[in-house]
Amino acid sequence: MTNAAAAPLPSSETLADLSEGEVLARIFPRLPGSDAQLLGPGDDAAVLRAPDGRYVVTTDMMIQGPDFRLAWSTPHDLGWKAAATNLSDVAAMGARPTALVVAIAAPPSTPIWVIEGIADGLRDGCEALAPGCGVVGGDLSASDALTLAVTAFGDLEGREPVLRSGARPGDVVALAGRLGDAGWGLSLLFRLGVDADGTPDAALAAALRERHPREIGAQLAPEPPIDRGPAAALAGATAMLDVSDGLAIDAGRLARASGVGIDFDSTTLGGQVERALGGGEDHGLLATFPAGTELPDGFRRLGVVTAAAGVVLVDGTPHTQGGWDPYRGWDGAAG
Amino acid sequence: MTNAAAAPLPSSETLADLSEGEVLARIFPRLPGSDAQLLGPGDDAAVLRAPDGRYVVTTDMMIQGPDFRLAWSTPHDLGWKAAATNLSDVAAMGARPTALVVAIAAPPSTPIWVIEGIADGLRDGCEALAPGCGVVGGDLSASDALTLAVTAFGDLEGREPVLRSGARPGDVVALAGRLGDAGWGLSLLFRLGVDADGTPDAALAAALRERHPREIGAQLAPEPPIDRGPAAALAGATAMLDVSDGLAIDAGRLARASGVGIDFDSTTLGGQVERALGGGEDHGLLATFPAGTELPDGFRRLGVVTAAAGVVLVDGTPHTQGGWDPYRGWDGAAG
Repeated sequence: MTNAAAAPLPSSETLADLSEGEVLARIFPRLPGSDAQLLGPGDDAAVLRAPDGRYVVTTDMMIQGPDFRLAWSTPHDLGWKAAATNLSDVAAMGARPTALVVAIAAPPSTPIWVIEGIADGLRDGCEALAPGCGVVGGDLSASDALTLAVTAFGDLEGREPVLRSGARPGDVVALAGRLGDAGWGLSLLFRLGVDADGTPDAALAAALRERHPREIGAQLAPEPPIDRGPAAALAGATAMLDVSDGLAIDAGRLARASGVGIDFDSTTLGGQVERALGGGEDHGLLATFPAGTELPDGFRRLGVVTAAAGVVLVDGTPHTQGGWDPYRGWDGAAG
Repeated sequence: MTNAAAAPLPSSETLADLSEGEVLARIFPRLPGSDAQLLGPGDDAAVLRAPDGRYVVTTDMMIQGPDFRLAWSTPHDLGWKAAATNLSDVAAMGARPTALVVAIAAPPSTPIWVIEGIADGLRDGCEALAPGCGVVGGDLSASDALTLAVTAFGDLEGREPVLRSGARPGDVVALAGRLGDAGWGLSLLFRLGVDADGTPDAALAAALRERHPREIGAQLAPEPPIDRGPAAALAGATAMLDVSDGLAIDAGRLARASGVGIDFDSTTLGGQVERALGGGEDHGLLATFPAGTELPDGFRRLGVVTAAAGVVLVDGTPHTQGGWDPYRGWDGAAG
């Protein structure tokens, strides 16, 4: 006897069961459209509008193993995060995200519902974080490890891009977004989302996410404040970047690019100062504004720009940075 | 005693020995600049010119195993081919390629000279095939399989894009580029570039390339006629696409998109008709032109557009298509 109340089982079809055309036919209706699209998927290339004669471009790859574990992330999370992290790089230029192209490589044994879930995550991420931004093209390939390569585009709407190099001594340092949650979420997953052998475990991770939705959510499906990028540009931000490798490291990058120092006021960094300074994958927007600027909604003051070139300070004392490096930080055996 | 005449050994340093910043410092000087670049690598995103208010975008991923074998392709080949195949998709819209962004994922044990060789191949491919086109940004990640994800951009220079859907009965069918060599080169490699166990072998492949430079070269480092894309658009091409999966399959795509048939004249397909129709990865440009058009240099007539919707014929007889599918065509065990 069937149980009419049970949720429908996801299709057991795999990529190997379907032609490339059939896979695309499953994906396309799920993808968000782009307001900038003049010609979308289906030809050799897409054509996009660039109303002010320029466009912003960034690219980022996410790979099963180094960048995510299928035991921890749902397919929807993967699509959402791939969109969110790229949208944040566009926003950090002061641009409005307009479109994505998405290349997915997956093992032939991958169930089609995994690819459909990624498409749903791309759609929901774009709709929530950057309405009007959509997927205009892509590529499907075979691989051993699930891989998402996203390239994102943005419209500066006639403004100058906000670079990392424009901060000046005396500017206010401000942030939109969260600090330390995503990094803490990852450390929770590595400590408590694994079985006794250290293997990532889906049931443990799901339970952990219920107990720590803020931190695990920030890690697996971040919600960067995309619309604050253009808002910062309009408010006169002198420099800005996406905080992806931790506040201290990224502040150091902005400081070196601008030839200035940054002095954080520890009282603004929450109760866990080192977690705020060192946690990766926050995807907040760190910006500097001329002194006296009324900060745009969503930005809060964290400190001040100093003349000490390239130095990151906390309450006037130099801060020693840790670091994330893609080739040193990854242990394939860790999951 | 050192032998002063010996070639310098490639550096034995690996990605794991270097910081991300050090790797980028090795790569950047090797990459070609883009004439369209307003802001290049080093910030959260690049900014590119779009003089006519539009831009063309395409993306493609190449993965060690399904898409290439390190025993057969040099790093220079990989960079060259990653550029060439993406440039060809831009050209197939009638656009001039302007820029690439390149994401590379590689095992930490990868020698730095492999990444440098890829960068050199990207540069030489752009300089040879699309002068003025350059690399404006990218991403470095860790992975088990060497992976290149390239997104390419183009400028329509005020023209309308040439779609797959514009062919009309009576149009001339024409091609710029080679037919069948790349597919034949791959079959040679699979038959003669492997050892007794079927494992790809570098020495055998190198010897094979000396004996069959045309076919192996077309497979490993293709030279698509990029500048013929804009030339076809200027000459009034009604439809165009990049021949990547074999002439018959891609002609079928153009025929279905346009609601027409295509009838090839077998006498124009060279001595090996099936090789010409079925070989993949040619990366020539298949275009249709109104009857009576003087074909642009580099294009040769292959047949005529008919009214029989979606049908590919050879000398008036329907042609049965083979096919390449990324999830069905790849056997991971094949190398």
